[in-house]
Amino acid sequence: MTMKVGIVGYGNLGKGVQQAIAQNPDMELVAIFTRRQPEQMKAEGGNAQFEHISAVEKYVGVIDVMIMCGGSATDLPEQTPMMARMFNTVDSFDTHAKIPEFFDAVNTAAKENGVVSVISTGWDPGLFSMNRLLAQSILPEGTDYTFWGKGVSQGHSDAIRRVPGVKGGVQYTVPVEEVIQRIRTGETPELSTREKHKRECYVVAEEGADLDEIRHTIESMPNYFADYNTTVTFITEEQLKNEHGEMPHGGFVIRSGVTGQGKRQLIEFSLKLESNPGFTASVLVAYARAAYRMSQEGQTGAKTVFDIPLSYLSPKSAEELRRELL
Amino acid sequence: MTMKVGIVGYGNLGKGVQQAIAQNPDMELVAIFTRRQPEQMKAEGGNAQFEHISAVEKYVGVIDVMIMCGGSATDLPEQTPMMARMFNTVDSFDTHAKIPEFFDAVNTAAKENGVVSVISTGWDPGLFSMNRLLAQSILPEGTDYTFWGKGVSQGHSDAIRRVPGVKGGVQYTVPVEEVIQRIRTGETPELSTREKHKRECYVVAEEGADLDEIRHTIESMPNYFADYNTTVTFITEEQLKNEHGEMPHGGFVIRSGVTGQGKRQLIEFSLKLESNPGFTASVLVAYARAAYRMSQEGQTGAKTVFDIPLSYLSPKSAEELRRELL
Repeated sequence: MTMKVGIVGYGNLGKGVQQAIAQNPDMELVAIFTRRQPEQMKAEGGNAQFEHISAVEKYVGVIDVMIMCGGSATDLPEQTPMMARMFNTVDSFDTHAKIPEFFDAVNTAAKENGVVSVISTGWDPGLFSMNRLLAQSILPEGTDYTFWGKGVSQGHSDAIRRVPGVKGGVQYTVPVEEVIQRIRTGETPELSTREKHKRECYVVAEEGADLDEIRHTIESMPNYFADYNTTVTFITEEQLKNEHGEMPHGGFVIRSGVTGQGKRQLIEFSLKLESNPGFTASVLVAYARAAYRMSQEGQTGAKTVFDIPLSYLSPKSAEELRRELL
Repeated sequence: MTMKVGIVGYGNLGKGVQQAIAQNPDMELVAIFTRRQPEQMKAEGGNAQFEHISAVEKYVGVIDVMIMCGGSATDLPEQTPMMARMFNTVDSFDTHAKIPEFFDAVNTAAKENGVVSVISTGWDPGLFSMNRLLAQSILPEGTDYTFWGKGVSQGHSDAIRRVPGVKGGVQYTVPVEEVIQRIRTGETPELSTREKHKRECYVVAEEGADLDEIRHTIESMPNYFADYNTTVTFITEEQLKNEHGEMPHGGFVIRSGVTGQGKRQLIEFSLKLESNPGFTASVLVAYARAAYRMSQEGQTGAKTVFDIPLSYLSPKSAEELRRELL
């Protein structure tokens, strides 16, 4: 029996989810909900059924899981609790500091309405969080490291684009490879912000702008760049489009610990992603399967990646998993 | 409240579990059960309470979880179902092909007696299995690779030692690093056995033995060495003791997959272990915590790492985990 899925929001993430559903034969995309005019979406959306978000109630009892693809800043805090009054949901809410209050709001809505809402999936929060928990539980004496990149940071790219005289730009977060190598050989250094990541900015300046001024404004920007070794490279609009149009990302979670008699043990999880939204979308889709299954079992409330057995992510039966993958 | 733990079997793994319990303040080691004479164990066991395995029934109601540290060939198939008639258990049964029948036997005993038995933990089966399942579920279109090493293989070392003229020896399984690099850059080669791993043998020959004959016998041994590029290096007994007395191991699980528009996505999990038994012991202990918790909740039967939410491995509360690690 196929699982009926809806998508809320049709940016890069929503498009990724649409493509990921097509890779999972046990799922069927029923409709994509948008705040834009559904008629205008046909051109970019292929054969999908588009609906205005206000029409969502029509799909109660039809859609098994709603995959939430809005942004964490303003969309999800409002949309996930709202959708959890009608549907099982899964989202990738990623404002780490606000997860506890988001969990509570979604949990209340989901419990009241007897649905399952899986929050904060993706890769960080998500797969990286799982590996931090797993590694800490196995090696209680040890040190944790999380590195991000090389990849585009949307927030930092936005910060560049707000600088006067800047026409466009993109920022890559780059982990300091030498430090990762030291950790892999068994060192457990205490690292400052500057020692862990570099920031590489590629900037298109407006005609006649003062490049030194732009460079200085970026490099000295508090919170975003001042605490990092930051490089600013000026490029043309064409280069920005041709060479920096992709959204790669990735990173590393490493725990270096010690067991009896001082033996050093290293656990490492890493991702190397050509498309950050494409990968996050694939994680969302796997957890949509889990949300549906938990709901079928009668579970309710908000769940995180910590609460869900891995078997729920796979279309295979428990017997198959034990035979083929254990 | 501390969890009361017993250990069955006191080889390298049992000793590792004893040390791992000491790293977990929520656990208390109650007794170690052995087939040897308990009185003879004091010298190697420190302050631990030793009991003959026949005295195990005395501990029903006292020990919350029994950690099974016998071998997979003959000990565990007999001991785990037996102990699951009295206690929650956790083991690291690692004969992949026999896991389904082992699961059934343990499941029957555990269900009948209302206990939880977590089987086949450790790192392969165990953490590697979890990463295979996770990566396949997220990237349904892709290719899986598991590499082991560099590390000592007990079975292959035993095979060397059975060769006529061999006094002692150790065998290291070594992953072919160049192939891993190719996979990391996005290739998905089909690999023969020979292309994935090398086997390095360090051999102490008896006096007057024919070294060429030994080398040839090892290199041409079916199943164990004939399908691999195998090197045989003769060393002295002293070198064997001083340079090859440790039990390092590790490995890599890599999935190279594709999401929408052909974007390549790479998920990698790796371990670099100075002590294989020390690490396996630490995994057993984390899953002992899970067995106890599931049992407290009223669950029964055999479970694998696929069935257990990660939060059960940690002593921290769900709120702490969401706040600190998500």
